[in-house]
Amino acid sequence: MAKDFYGDLRLGILGGGQLGRMLIQDAINYNVNIHVLDPDQNAPCKKLCNHFEVGSLSDFDTVYNFGRDLDMITIEIEKVNVDALEKLEDEGVLVYPQSRVIRLIQDKGLQKQFFKQNDIPTAPFHFVSAHEGLKQIEWNFPYIQKLRKDGYDGKGVKKITSDADVSAAFTEPSIVEEMVDFEKEIAVIVARNDAGDVSTFPMVEMEFNPEANLVEFLISPSTFSIEIQQRAEEIAKKIANDLQIVGLLAVEMFLTKTGEILVNELAPRPHNSGHQTIEGNITSQFNQHLRAIFNLPLGNTATRDHAVMINVLGEDGYDGLAKYEGVEDILSLEGVFVHLYGKKFTKPFRKMGHVCIINKDRETAIKNARYVQSTLKVKA
Amino acid sequence: MAKDFYGDLRLGILGGGQLGRMLIQDAINYNVNIHVLDPDQNAPCKKLCNHFEVGSLSDFDTVYNFGRDLDMITIEIEKVNVDALEKLEDEGVLVYPQSRVIRLIQDKGLQKQFFKQNDIPTAPFHFVSAHEGLKQIEWNFPYIQKLRKDGYDGKGVKKITSDADVSAAFTEPSIVEEMVDFEKEIAVIVARNDAGDVSTFPMVEMEFNPEANLVEFLISPSTFSIEIQQRAEEIAKKIANDLQIVGLLAVEMFLTKTGEILVNELAPRPHNSGHQTIEGNITSQFNQHLRAIFNLPLGNTATRDHAVMINVLGEDGYDGLAKYEGVEDILSLEGVFVHLYGKKFTKPFRKMGHVCIINKDRETAIKNARYVQSTLKVKA
Repeated sequence: MAKDFYGDLRLGILGGGQLGRMLIQDAINYNVNIHVLDPDQNAPCKKLCNHFEVGSLSDFDTVYNFGRDLDMITIEIEKVNVDALEKLEDEGVLVYPQSRVIRLIQDKGLQKQFFKQNDIPTAPFHFVSAHEGLKQIEWNFPYIQKLRKDGYDGKGVKKITSDADVSAAFTEPSIVEEMVDFEKEIAVIVARNDAGDVSTFPMVEMEFNPEANLVEFLISPSTFSIEIQQRAEEIAKKIANDLQIVGLLAVEMFLTKTGEILVNELAPRPHNSGHQTIEGNITSQFNQHLRAIFNLPLGNTATRDHAVMINVLGEDGYDGLAKYEGVEDILSLEGVFVHLYGKKFTKPFRKMGHVCIINKDRETAIKNARYVQSTLKVKA
Repeated sequence: MAKDFYGDLRLGILGGGQLGRMLIQDAINYNVNIHVLDPDQNAPCKKLCNHFEVGSLSDFDTVYNFGRDLDMITIEIEKVNVDALEKLEDEGVLVYPQSRVIRLIQDKGLQKQFFKQNDIPTAPFHFVSAHEGLKQIEWNFPYIQKLRKDGYDGKGVKKITSDADVSAAFTEPSIVEEMVDFEKEIAVIVARNDAGDVSTFPMVEMEFNPEANLVEFLISPSTFSIEIQQRAEEIAKKIANDLQIVGLLAVEMFLTKTGEILVNELAPRPHNSGHQTIEGNITSQFNQHLRAIFNLPLGNTATRDHAVMINVLGEDGYDGLAKYEGVEDILSLEGVFVHLYGKKFTKPFRKMGHVCIINKDRETAIKNARYVQSTLKVKA
């Protein structure tokens, strides 16, 4: 990796959405020449990079041709053509995370197998073939069916509670999982660079919006015991080491009511559960991802303040040119940081931005976050 | 001002250098459509905006035509065609800071007169006409001659210590000032929005590089007494109110050996003396400038940690394609943030970037800053 930082390192990002956008906001500080590939000609990164190309992330030729003149490629979404990335790696392009890591994580079945093989705690599961479907499953309701591929943001996941659900189940290859009776969803983001340095961000707690099935409210740092936090961080470090990943890895976990930690799933990139690190921690997840892929020393991940992160979702019932209500009101509170993602059109529950609320006092941060949540609206 | 933030607010920035670049890094969070005018086709903002135009900032037609389809214009450099801005204001474009403020600040003579008329403490001065030159001055050496217009970063300033200096003095319209026997150069950045809200950042202390005559080392917050800090902040607030400026105003001051505060000069925009606010304060100067010009509530300016800011200057003796040495080494320290400005070519003392070092402990921050200063080099 060239570390002269004179602007001729060409970094490609597969995906031009908000994660790419926030990565670019930080990469600007390192004089990196950014190339972005995204199928949407209005993608959030479009006007913020040296070269923007409209094209399919799943198409071999498109990804291969996009990458062949680049020095390094990273992703902001897992659903990309991995064969093209593998060929680019063979030809000397640095691909971080590595194509084999993306290939494994793209498939929730392979992820689960990997957990099992490496003694990483996870909920019991079975594979479901497209042919046999749920017929072969003899578990009691309820349980969870997840598509092996292409699920994201709650899509591709079904709760199976009745015979009617079985009939309406996914017919593509999937896994079924025992439903975890969890106390809290937690996450740890871990980074690993090529030198093998590994560093975790402090564990965070998530609150989901059950209707949209999206992270809606994230609190950092966690107030669970140090023992639980350390256990979660050790699991994340073990996974990063077992995978030998270069880059950032988000590890989503369940903390069960009996105090067990079970890994839910992985994302090999900056993640929604780390947005609060921009203002809440010394190093942001985006800066850490850059440090990891550039093989620089990893940054200090300590929290600077209590932080609450809220996803700004398109209001239900509105579809069209986005308008934001309440920005002025929420900015009158102290420690409120608005991040809009530059998406022209809103639709119900679309992620349009996020807001981070920091405070020296945890309860004040949560109170202010509730105000932000009830005040900021995206309509059309 | 439209506050829907759906991306059709067109904000023009006159100047596409590092200040514009850092302003854009923050403006991305508000979905602002950015247009940039700069004479340099390789300007640091070039690839980060919706529209980049190469053109003279001093030319009436260029500035007028650039601005006529925009909703709002701001500046990152004072040396712009103010007549064009005045015409644009007359035609309904919002220009912040206002053209009359820029006109006054462009001329160090008018600045000094303004200080005098408004009882703002400043060093005694005289106007020097192009015709008469320094002949009319009867002060004892040494004193300072400053060009009324176009001085920046130490250029356009001469110390007059002898008759030989008098002969070599500037022949353009200028002012001469008594030399201030100062203890420390200090600065306060103040913001004012259109609603009339005014907010200052905590006072900072500056160390100059005498060779390059540039801010080289900045320490925040100051350790001078609260009384001195409050006095400096009150002066900055008074100037912002007297000017009725909308936007950010950097107020550079001398703290004399007798404890007096004298205003040196003003900059109506984000300023080198506020770069440490990105990591060191709750609200950054760039975010505050956007809040001010968008007439949003001003942000909390409190310091989060001790911060030291170092300008990264092109190494003496090197001219050409910039290469950075030591980035990896300095990033192994905790709390070190590198900001490179995307300038392709280095030359002696050119501002190529800055580094901010934060720490809970002031002495550690200073010690780490010294290490950064001796380690990070820009060569060619």
